[in-house]
Amino acid sequence: MLSNVKVVLCRTSHPGNIGAAARAAKTMSLQSLCLVNPWEFPSAEATRRASGAADLLDNAQVCDDLSTAVADCQLVFAASARSRTIKMPEMDARSAAEKIASLPASTKVAVVFGQERSGLSNDEIELCHTMVKIPANPEYTSLNMASAVQLICYEIQMAHLSTHERLPVHAETAKGEELANQKHFDSFIGSWLDLIEKIDFGDEKQSFSLKSRIRRVFMRAELTTYEVDLLRGMISAIGHKLG
Amino acid sequence: MLSNVKVVLCRTSHPGNIGAAARAAKTMSLQSLCLVNPWEFPSAEATRRASGAADLLDNAQVCDDLSTAVADCQLVFAASARSRTIKMPEMDARSAAEKIASLPASTKVAVVFGQERSGLSNDEIELCHTMVKIPANPEYTSLNMASAVQLICYEIQMAHLSTHERLPVHAETAKGEELANQKHFDSFIGSWLDLIEKIDFGDEKQSFSLKSRIRRVFMRAELTTYEVDLLRGMISAIGHKLG
Repeated sequence: MLSNVKVVLCRTSHPGNIGAAARAAKTMSLQSLCLVNPWEFPSAEATRRASGAADLLDNAQVCDDLSTAVADCQLVFAASARSRTIKMPEMDARSAAEKIASLPASTKVAVVFGQERSGLSNDEIELCHTMVKIPANPEYTSLNMASAVQLICYEIQMAHLSTHERLPVHAETAKGEELANQKHFDSFIGSWLDLIEKIDFGDEKQSFSLKSRIRRVFMRAELTTYEVDLLRGMISAIGHKLG
Repeated sequence: MLSNVKVVLCRTSHPGNIGAAARAAKTMSLQSLCLVNPWEFPSAEATRRASGAADLLDNAQVCDDLSTAVADCQLVFAASARSRTIKMPEMDARSAAEKIASLPASTKVAVVFGQERSGLSNDEIELCHTMVKIPANPEYTSLNMASAVQLICYEIQMAHLSTHERLPVHAETAKGEELANQKHFDSFIGSWLDLIEKIDFGDEKQSFSLKSRIRRVFMRAELTTYEVDLLRGMISAIGHKLG
């Protein structure tokens, strides 16, 4: 669990959003929630929307102001949808997450989200080190608060996962089956090409590129031993029928 | 705008989730929504939750089944929270987004989301090339549907934004050829399965898993239009010889 990162929600007006934010944070392995001057809390609606993340609500820190909320934090990010006149560093969510992941695990970090309609006040932003922005459609940046929490927590979690923990890019083979070796594969392709000749498919001129193309298609499929045997069985059956 | 990527929602039971998904997609610059057999649509609740993204609802394609919804698509991703016994490629959301960004901008892509509680059915998954997973807290993977749409669309947009700065991850398709769309592909698979019956290959008991496996092999190969025509021509030639 990413126990050093705290999600701070300021002056949230809809308790349902507090619940949805708790759920969003927990799905991404965060566990600390802090509520600054919430309109209504505790709330049955918050608990309902939190679904299985009610533990984050039960353990939430509730403060009267942001200054108290971030008193124990070493790095404070302000989530903001729009640009501000205030001069401070800006990062996108991915870069902020990479920065968090690069810090010692003991570094206490807060990510602060503003009120649903008005966002963070200038006084609140003054308490933050860096502005975090979520890249969005320039013509429609209307992310709701829980979605913003979801996306930033997702990036924080992704940055923390090592490459080993992420799914490999090519996990394209059938589960639990061994990939066919090239000798096996080649003998399958050979029987396929014999079939092509047997049915007089394609003219002499095309023949080479045709064979190469067929091979390429099955190379891309990354066949398992079982699949090679299956397809080869079919070719045998066709050959048998053809006599 | 990412006009080539379609968000497909299957059998959504709460119209509010349709609206929230539309909003999520639009914030991330996607504009195409397709609804397969929604419980209630159009719906005032969907429009309310869509906020400024009601245009996606107005223009949404509504279909009776997933096969129709993805007929014009060349690459179909299944968003899934849990592992399946079905044998197919898996990627995390970031890798899938990178793959989409590496394809020609004209390639039609669908990302398919299942019913809120039950997810995608096995029949629906059969129509997809690749499973996309969102890395989440292993002890609490409870992302709601709109959050899943939000995260995957976010990754698609992020990959799109940075694509010119990177070398393409995948150059898996034959250069200069268009990927076959699903309608074309399905008709090829149909003729293949007819051939299997004609040659009495496999017994009755195996028949279903055999057909599913054959389909899966060719899904993995991501055939181009030219290749589908080529393989289909071969099947016709075999059928002709068999009389």
